[in-house]
Amino acid sequence: MNTAIILASASPRRREILTQIGFDFTVITSQAEEEEKAALANEPSPVQKVEILSHLKGEDVFERLLAEGKEDFLVIGADTVVSIDDEILEKPVDLADAKYMISRLQGRVHTVYTGVSLFYADAAGKKKEQTFVVGSEVEVYPMTEEEIFWYISEEEPYDKAGSYAIQGVFKRFIKHINGDYDNIVGLPAGAVYHAVQEMLREVP
Amino acid sequence: MNTAIILASASPRRREILTQIGFDFTVITSQAEEEEKAALANEPSPVQKVEILSHLKGEDVFERLLAEGKEDFLVIGADTVVSIDDEILEKPVDLADAKYMISRLQGRVHTVYTGVSLFYADAAGKKKEQTFVVGSEVEVYPMTEEEIFWYISEEEPYDKAGSYAIQGVFKRFIKHINGDYDNIVGLPAGAVYHAVQEMLREVP
Repeated sequence: MNTAIILASASPRRREILTQIGFDFTVITSQAEEEEKAALANEPSPVQKVEILSHLKGEDVFERLLAEGKEDFLVIGADTVVSIDDEILEKPVDLADAKYMISRLQGRVHTVYTGVSLFYADAAGKKKEQTFVVGSEVEVYPMTEEEIFWYISEEEPYDKAGSYAIQGVFKRFIKHINGDYDNIVGLPAGAVYHAVQEMLREVP
Repeated sequence: MNTAIILASASPRRREILTQIGFDFTVITSQAEEEEKAALANEPSPVQKVEILSHLKGEDVFERLLAEGKEDFLVIGADTVVSIDDEILEKPVDLADAKYMISRLQGRVHTVYTGVSLFYADAAGKKKEQTFVVGSEVEVYPMTEEEIFWYISEEEPYDKAGSYAIQGVFKRFIKHINGDYDNIVGLPAGAVYHAVQEMLREVP
Protein backbone atom coordinates (compact mmCIF):
# COMPACT_ATOMS: atom_id res chain seq x y z
CA MET A 1 0.00 0.00 0.00
CA ASN A 2 1.16 3.53 -0.76
CA THR A 3 -1.05 5.24 1.79
CA ALA A 4 1.05 7.19 4.31
CA ILE A 5 0.48 5.92 7.85
CA ILE A 6 0.79 8.39 10.71
CA LEU A 7 0.95 7.43 14.37
CA ALA A 8 -0.54 10.25 16.49
CA SER A 9 1.29 9.21 19.65
CA ALA A 10 4.64 10.01 21.23
CA SER A 11 4.79 6.64 23.03
CA PRO A 12 7.98 4.72 22.21
CA ARG A 13 6.10 1.48 23.03
CA ARG A 14 3.42 2.13 20.40
CA ARG A 15 6.10 3.03 17.88
CA GLU A 16 7.88 -0.26 18.60
CA ILE A 17 4.69 -2.33 18.18
CA LEU A 18 3.84 -0.71 14.83
CA THR A 19 7.42 -1.34 13.70
CA GLN A 20 7.23 -4.96 14.85
CA ILE A 21 4.13 -5.64 12.73
CA GLY A 22 5.95 -4.27 9.71
CA PHE A 23 4.24 -0.89 9.22
CA ASP A 24 6.07 2.00 7.60
CA PHE A 25 4.90 5.13 9.37
CA THR A 26 5.79 8.55 10.70
CA VAL A 27 4.99 10.00 14.12
CA ILE A 28 3.08 13.27 14.47
CA THR A 29 2.12 14.08 18.02
CA SER A 30 -1.31 15.41 18.83
CA GLN A 31 -1.58 18.86 20.37
CA ALA A 32 -5.06 18.18 21.72
CA GLU A 33 -4.19 18.42 25.39
CA GLU A 34 -6.44 21.30 26.41
CA GLU A 35 -9.32 19.86 24.46
CA GLU A 36 -8.73 16.54 26.22
CA LYS A 37 -9.23 17.94 29.67
CA ALA A 38 -12.47 19.66 28.69
CA ALA A 39 -13.83 16.48 27.12
CA LEU A 40 -13.10 14.47 30.22
CA ALA A 41 -14.64 16.79 32.77
CA ASN A 42 -17.71 14.58 33.23
CA GLU A 43 -15.96 11.50 34.67
CA PRO A 44 -16.20 8.98 31.87
CA SER A 45 -15.86 5.21 32.32
CA PRO A 46 -12.50 3.65 31.38
CA VAL A 47 -13.90 2.57 28.00
CA GLN A 48 -15.41 6.00 27.31
CA LYS A 49 -12.18 7.68 28.31
CA VAL A 50 -9.94 5.78 25.88
CA GLU A 51 -12.56 6.17 23.13
CA ILE A 52 -12.68 9.92 23.64
CA LEU A 53 -8.93 10.40 23.96
CA SER A 54 -7.87 8.17 21.08
CA HIS A 55 -10.43 9.95 18.91
CA LEU A 56 -9.27 13.41 20.01
CA LYS A 57 -5.60 12.61 19.43
CA GLY A 58 -6.17 11.04 16.02
CA GLU A 59 -8.62 13.71 14.86
CA ASP A 60 -6.31 16.56 15.88
CA VAL A 61 -3.48 15.24 13.70
CA PHE A 62 -5.88 14.26 10.89
CA GLU A 63 -7.46 17.71 10.70
CA ARG A 64 -4.09 19.45 10.74
CA LEU A 65 -2.81 17.32 7.85
CA LEU A 66 -6.04 17.83 5.89
CA ALA A 67 -5.68 21.59 6.39
CA GLU A 68 -2.18 21.32 4.94
CA GLY A 69 -3.67 19.69 1.82
CA LYS A 70 -2.32 16.18 2.48
CA GLU A 71 -4.13 13.26 0.82
CA ASP A 72 -4.05 9.43 0.80
CA PHE A 73 -3.08 9.06 4.44
CA LEU A 74 -4.26 7.21 7.54
CA VAL A 75 -3.85 8.47 11.11
CA ILE A 76 -3.78 6.14 14.13
CA GLY A 77 -4.72 7.64 17.51
CA ALA A 78 -4.50 5.57 20.69
CA ASP A 79 -4.97 5.88 24.43
CA THR A 80 -4.46 3.29 27.20
CA VAL A 81 -5.73 3.17 30.78
CA VAL A 82 -5.48 0.68 33.61
CA SER A 83 -8.73 0.04 35.46
CA ILE A 84 -9.62 -1.76 38.67
CA ASP A 85 -13.04 -1.69 40.36
CA ASP A 86 -14.03 0.90 37.70
CA GLU A 87 -11.35 3.26 38.98
CA ILE A 88 -8.93 4.56 36.37
CA LEU A 89 -5.24 4.42 37.30
CA GLU A 90 -3.26 7.08 35.44
CA LYS A 91 0.49 7.65 35.32
CA PRO A 92 1.74 8.09 38.91
CA VAL A 93 2.69 11.59 40.01
CA ASP A 94 5.10 10.47 42.73
CA LEU A 95 6.36 7.53 44.80
CA ALA A 96 3.35 7.49 47.12
CA ASP A 97 1.03 7.43 44.13
CA ALA A 98 2.94 4.52 42.55
CA LYS A 99 2.85 2.68 45.89
CA TYR A 100 -0.92 3.14 46.08
CA MET A 101 -1.45 1.81 42.57
CA ILE A 102 0.83 -1.23 42.84
CA SER A 103 -0.75 -2.06 46.21
CA ARG A 104 -4.17 -1.94 44.54
CA LEU A 105 -3.09 -4.15 41.64
CA GLN A 106 -1.09 -6.85 43.47
CA GLY A 107 -2.82 -10.19 44.07
CA ARG A 108 -5.74 -9.30 41.82
CA VAL A 109 -7.07 -9.14 38.26
CA HIS A 110 -7.40 -5.77 36.55
CA THR A 111 -8.23 -4.64 33.03
CA VAL A 112 -6.20 -2.60 30.58
CA TYR A 113 -8.18 -0.76 27.90
CA THR A 114 -6.69 0.69 24.77
CA GLY A 115 -8.79 2.86 22.49
CA VAL A 116 -7.76 3.03 18.84
CA SER A 117 -9.05 5.60 16.34
CA LEU A 118 -8.34 5.39 12.63
CA PHE A 119 -8.87 8.33 10.29
CA TYR A 120 -8.41 7.87 6.57
CA ALA A 121 -8.48 10.28 3.64
CA ASP A 122 -7.95 8.89 0.15
CA ALA A 123 -6.57 10.71 -2.89
CA ALA A 124 -10.10 11.62 -4.04
CA GLY A 125 -10.92 13.40 -0.78
CA LYS A 126 -13.11 10.60 0.56
CA LYS A 127 -12.88 10.24 4.35
CA LYS A 128 -13.52 7.41 6.74
CA GLU A 129 -13.04 6.82 10.46
CA GLN A 130 -13.35 4.02 12.98
CA THR A 131 -12.86 3.84 16.75
CA PHE A 132 -12.68 0.65 18.80
CA VAL A 133 -11.63 -0.38 22.30
CA VAL A 134 -9.78 -3.57 23.26
CA GLY A 135 -9.77 -4.73 26.89
CA SER A 136 -7.27 -7.25 28.28
CA GLU A 137 -7.29 -8.79 31.75
CA VAL A 138 -4.08 -9.00 33.75
CA GLU A 139 -3.58 -11.01 36.94
CA VAL A 140 -0.76 -9.84 39.19
CA TYR A 141 0.89 -12.16 41.75
CA PRO A 142 0.54 -11.21 45.42
CA MET A 143 3.51 -8.96 46.23
CA THR A 144 5.31 -8.49 49.52
CA GLU A 145 5.89 -5.01 50.99
CA GLU A 146 9.56 -5.43 50.03
CA GLU A 147 8.69 -6.26 46.42
CA ILE A 148 6.36 -3.26 46.16
CA PHE A 149 8.96 -0.93 47.64
CA TRP A 150 11.70 -2.37 45.44
CA TYR A 151 9.58 -1.88 42.32
CA ILE A 152 8.45 1.68 42.99
CA SER A 153 12.07 2.61 43.72
CA GLU A 154 12.91 1.69 40.12
CA GLU A 155 12.53 4.16 37.25
CA GLU A 156 10.14 1.94 35.35
CA PRO A 157 6.72 2.84 36.90
CA TYR A 158 6.88 6.59 36.41
CA ASP A 159 5.74 7.14 32.83
CA LYS A 160 3.32 4.21 32.75
CA ALA A 161 -0.46 4.11 33.24
CA GLY A 162 -1.13 2.06 36.40
CA SER A 163 2.51 2.45 37.49
CA TYR A 164 3.85 -0.67 35.79
CA ALA A 165 5.33 -1.91 32.52
CA ILE A 166 4.34 -5.47 31.57
CA GLN A 167 7.26 -5.58 29.14
CA GLY A 168 9.74 -4.52 31.85
CA VAL A 169 11.02 -5.99 35.10
CA PHE A 170 7.40 -6.03 36.33
CA LYS A 171 6.81 -9.15 34.23
CA ARG A 172 8.18 -11.13 37.17
CA PHE A 173 4.93 -10.23 38.97
CA ILE A 174 2.54 -11.08 36.10
CA LYS A 175 0.61 -14.31 36.66
CA HIS A 176 -1.80 -14.47 33.76
CA ILE A 177 -3.20 -12.45 30.92
CA ASN A 178 -6.45 -12.92 29.07
CA GLY A 179 -6.59 -10.86 25.91
CA ASP A 180 -4.00 -9.16 23.76
CA TYR A 181 -0.49 -8.70 25.14
CA ASP A 182 0.40 -5.69 22.99
CA ASN A 183 -2.85 -4.06 24.01
CA ILE A 184 -1.48 -4.04 27.57
CA VAL A 185 1.79 -2.54 26.31
CA GLY A 186 -0.20 0.19 24.53
CA LEU A 187 -1.50 -0.87 21.09
CA PRO A 188 -3.43 -4.04 20.10
CA ALA A 189 -1.18 -5.17 17.24
CA GLY A 190 -3.45 -7.75 15.58
CA ALA A 191 -6.59 -5.61 15.83
CA VAL A 192 -4.79 -2.55 14.43
CA TYR A 193 -3.29 -4.53 11.54
CA HIS A 194 -6.68 -5.97 10.58
CA ALA A 195 -8.61 -2.71 10.98
CA VAL A 196 -6.08 -0.84 8.83
CA GLN A 197 -6.15 -3.58 6.14
CA GLU A 198 -9.94 -3.46 6.08
CA MET A 199 -10.16 0.32 5.97
CA LEU A 200 -7.71 0.56 3.07
CA ARG A 201 -9.41 -2.30 1.22
CA GLU A 202 -12.95 -0.97 1.57
CA VAL A 203 -12.32 2.51 0.25
CA PRO A 204 -11.95 2.22 -3.54
CA MET B 1 21.07 -13.60 46.70
CA ASN B 2 24.60 -14.82 46.03
CA THR B 3 23.60 -18.09 44.44
CA ALA B 4 24.94 -18.33 40.88
CA ILE B 5 22.10 -18.75 38.37
CA ILE B 6 22.78 -20.72 35.20
CA LEU B 7 20.47 -20.85 32.20
CA ALA B 8 20.86 -24.18 30.42
CA SER B 9 19.55 -22.90 27.10
CA ALA B 10 21.09 -21.29 24.04
CA SER B 11 17.83 -19.45 23.18
CA PRO B 12 18.34 -15.69 22.89
CA ARG B 13 14.64 -15.23 23.76
CA ARG B 14 15.02 -17.03 27.09
CA ARG B 15 18.15 -15.03 27.82
CA GLU B 16 16.23 -11.81 27.15
CA ILE B 17 13.32 -12.77 29.43
CA LEU B 18 15.64 -13.65 32.35
CA THR B 19 17.44 -10.35 31.82
CA GLN B 20 14.12 -8.46 31.75
CA ILE B 21 13.09 -9.85 35.14
CA GLY B 22 16.38 -8.68 36.59
CA PHE B 23 18.27 -11.96 37.03
CA ASP B 24 22.07 -12.07 36.93
CA PHE B 25 22.99 -15.32 35.21
CA THR B 26 25.37 -17.12 32.90
CA VAL B 27 24.48 -19.40 30.00
CA ILE B 28 25.81 -22.96 29.82
CA THR B 29 24.31 -24.98 27.02
CA SER B 30 23.24 -28.57 27.58
CA GLN B 31 24.99 -31.29 25.59
CA ALA B 32 22.15 -33.74 26.18
CA GLU B 33 21.07 -34.07 22.56
CA GLU B 34 21.64 -37.80 22.05
CA GLU B 35 20.03 -38.59 25.36
CA GLU B 36 17.05 -36.46 24.34
CA LYS B 37 16.29 -38.48 21.26
CA ALA B 38 16.42 -41.76 23.18
CA ALA B 39 14.11 -40.41 25.87
CA LEU B 40 11.57 -39.27 23.30
CA ALA B 41 11.39 -42.47 21.29
CA ASN B 42 8.04 -43.46 22.81
CA GLU B 43 5.95 -40.53 21.48
CA PRO B 44 5.23 -38.50 24.60
CA SER B 45 2.40 -35.99 24.90
CA PRO B 46 3.32 -32.29 24.54
CA VAL B 47 3.36 -31.88 28.34
CA GLN B 48 5.48 -35.01 28.84
CA LYS B 49 7.86 -33.91 26.13
CA VAL B 50 8.65 -30.49 27.62
CA GLU B 51 8.91 -32.07 31.10
CA ILE B 52 11.41 -34.63 29.87
CA LEU B 53 13.46 -32.22 27.78
CA SER B 54 13.63 -29.37 30.27
CA HIS B 55 14.69 -31.92 32.90
CA LEU B 56 17.34 -33.49 30.65
CA LYS B 57 18.80 -30.12 29.66
CA GLY B 58 18.90 -28.79 33.21
CA GLU B 59 20.22 -32.01 34.70
CA ASP B 60 22.99 -32.33 32.14
CA VAL B 61 24.39 -28.91 33.02
CA PHE B 62 23.76 -29.43 36.75
CA GLU B 63 25.65 -32.74 36.84
CA ARG B 64 28.58 -31.35 34.88
CA LEU B 65 28.94 -28.40 37.27
CA LEU B 66 28.61 -30.68 40.33
CA ALA B 67 31.36 -32.90 38.87
CA GLU B 68 33.53 -29.79 38.57
CA GLY B 69 33.03 -29.17 42.29
CA LYS B 70 30.79 -26.10 41.91
CA GLU B 71 28.50 -25.25 44.85
CA ASP B 72 25.72 -22.75 45.69
CA PHE B 73 24.23 -22.62 42.22
CA LEU B 74 20.86 -23.02 40.51
CA VAL B 75 20.37 -24.32 36.96
CA ILE B 76 17.30 -23.48 34.86
CA GLY B 77 16.42 -25.87 32.03
CA ALA B 78 13.53 -25.13 29.66
CA ASP B 79 11.83 -26.53 26.58
CA THR B 80 8.90 -25.15 24.57
CA VAL B 81 6.56 -26.83 22.10
CA VAL B 82 3.53 -25.71 20.10
CA SER B 83 0.63 -28.15 20.14
CA ILE B 84 -2.60 -28.38 18.18
CA ASP B 85 -5.01 -31.37 18.27
CA ASP B 86 -2.37 -33.13 20.41
CA GLU B 87 0.10 -32.91 17.56
CA ILE B 88 3.46 -31.34 18.41
CA LEU B 89 4.74 -28.72 15.97
CA GLU B 90 8.54 -28.53 16.06
CA LYS B 91 10.86 -26.07 14.33
CA PRO B 92 10.16 -26.23 10.58
CA VAL B 93 12.72 -28.00 8.40
CA ASP B 94 11.84 -26.11 5.23
CA LEU B 95 9.34 -23.78 3.53
CA ALA B 96 6.78 -26.54 2.92
CA ASP B 97 6.95 -27.53 6.56
CA ALA B 98 6.45 -23.91 7.72
CA LYS B 99 3.53 -23.57 5.29
CA TYR B 100 1.92 -26.72 6.74
CA MET B 101 2.28 -25.46 10.32
CA ILE B 102 1.02 -21.93 9.73
CA SER B 103 -1.91 -23.33 7.72
CA ARG B 104 -2.74 -25.57 10.69
CA LEU B 105 -2.52 -22.72 13.20
CA GLN B 106 -4.39 -19.96 11.32
CA GLY B 107 -7.98 -19.26 12.34
CA ARG B 108 -7.74 -21.48 15.43
CA VAL B 109 -6.64 -21.74 19.05
CA HIS B 110 -3.51 -23.75 19.90
CA THR B 111 -1.50 -24.27 23.07
CA VAL B 112 2.12 -23.48 23.79
CA TYR B 113 3.74 -25.52 26.58
CA THR B 114 6.98 -24.62 28.27
CA GLY B 115 8.61 -27.03 30.70
CA VAL B 116 10.89 -25.53 33.32
CA SER B 117 13.31 -27.56 35.48
CA LEU B 118 15.18 -26.05 38.39
CA PHE B 119 18.18 -27.77 39.98
CA TYR B 120 19.76 -26.28 43.08
CA ALA B 121 22.83 -27.22 45.09
CA ASP B 122 23.65 -25.16 48.16
CA ALA B 123 27.09 -24.60 49.72
CA ALA B 124 26.56 -27.53 52.12
CA GLY B 125 25.98 -30.00 49.28
CA LYS B 126 22.22 -30.16 49.77
CA LYS B 127 20.34 -30.63 46.48
CA LYS B 128 16.82 -29.84 45.36
CA GLU B 129 14.93 -29.95 42.07
CA GLN B 130 11.56 -28.98 40.67
CA THR B 131 9.94 -29.36 37.27
CA PHE B 132 6.73 -27.69 36.13
CA VAL B 133 4.88 -27.04 32.89
CA VAL B 134 2.98 -23.89 31.94
CA GLY B 135 0.49 -23.95 29.08
CA SER B 136 -0.80 -20.83 27.30
CA GLU B 137 -3.53 -20.67 24.67
CA VAL B 138 -3.03 -18.61 21.54
CA GLU B 139 -5.72 -17.69 19.01
CA VAL B 140 -4.50 -16.84 15.53
CA TYR B 141 -6.58 -14.74 13.10
CA PRO B 142 -7.71 -16.43 9.90
CA MET B 143 -4.96 -15.83 7.35
CA THR B 144 -5.22 -15.54 3.58
CA GLU B 145 -3.01 -17.64 1.28
CA GLU B 146 -1.10 -14.44 0.51
CA GLU B 147 -0.49 -13.73 4.20
CA ILE B 148 0.72 -17.29 4.82
CA PHE B 149 3.05 -17.17 1.82
CA TRP B 150 4.33 -13.74 2.79
CA TYR B 151 5.08 -14.89 6.35
CA ILE B 152 6.86 -18.13 5.47
CA SER B 153 9.00 -16.19 2.99
CA GLU B 154 10.37 -14.17 5.92
CA GLU B 155 13.34 -15.37 7.98
CA GLU B 156 11.36 -15.30 11.24
CA PRO B 157 9.64 -18.76 11.23
CA TYR B 158 12.74 -20.90 10.73
CA ASP B 159 14.20 -21.30 14.20
CA LYS B 160 10.86 -21.21 16.05
CA ALA B 161 8.72 -24.06 17.36
CA GLY B 162 5.43 -23.99 15.43
CA SER B 163 7.02 -21.77 12.74
CA TYR B 164 6.12 -18.43 14.30
CA ALA B 165 7.41 -15.80 16.73
CA ILE B 166 4.72 -14.08 18.79
CA GLN B 167 7.18 -11.29 19.58
CA GLY B 168 7.96 -10.75 15.88
CA VAL B 169 6.01 -9.60 12.84
CA PHE B 170 3.64 -12.55 13.42
CA LYS B 171 2.00 -10.54 16.20
CA ARG B 172 -0.14 -8.92 13.50
CA PHE B 173 -1.89 -12.32 13.24
CA ILE B 174 -2.40 -12.91 16.98
CA LYS B 175 -6.01 -12.43 18.09
CA HIS B 176 -5.98 -13.47 21.75
CA ILE B 177 -3.85 -15.13 24.36
CA ASN B 178 -4.97 -16.82 27.55
CA GLY B 179 -2.06 -17.52 29.87
CA ASP B 180 1.46 -16.17 30.15
CA TYR B 181 2.90 -14.17 27.25
CA ASP B 182 6.53 -14.92 28.03
CA ASN B 183 5.70 -18.60 28.24
CA ILE B 184 4.75 -18.39 24.56
CA VAL B 185 8.03 -16.63 23.81
CA GLY B 186 9.91 -19.42 25.64
CA LEU B 187 10.03 -18.94 29.42
CA PRO B 188 7.19 -18.14 31.88
CA ALA B 189 8.77 -15.12 33.58
CA GLY B 190 6.50 -14.81 36.63
CA ALA B 191 6.42 -18.55 37.36
CA VAL B 192 10.22 -18.82 37.04
CA TYR B 193 10.80 -15.81 39.31
CA HIS B 194 8.51 -17.19 42.00
CA ALA B 195 9.79 -20.78 41.79
CA VAL B 196 13.41 -19.58 42.06
CA GLN B 197 12.57 -17.32 45.01
CA GLU B 198 10.84 -20.17 46.79
CA MET B 199 13.59 -22.70 46.13
CA LEU B 200 16.29 -20.38 47.44
CA ARG B 201 14.18 -19.40 50.44
CA GLU B 202 13.29 -22.93 51.48
CA VAL B 203 16.79 -24.34 51.55
CA PRO B 204 18.45 -23.01 54.68
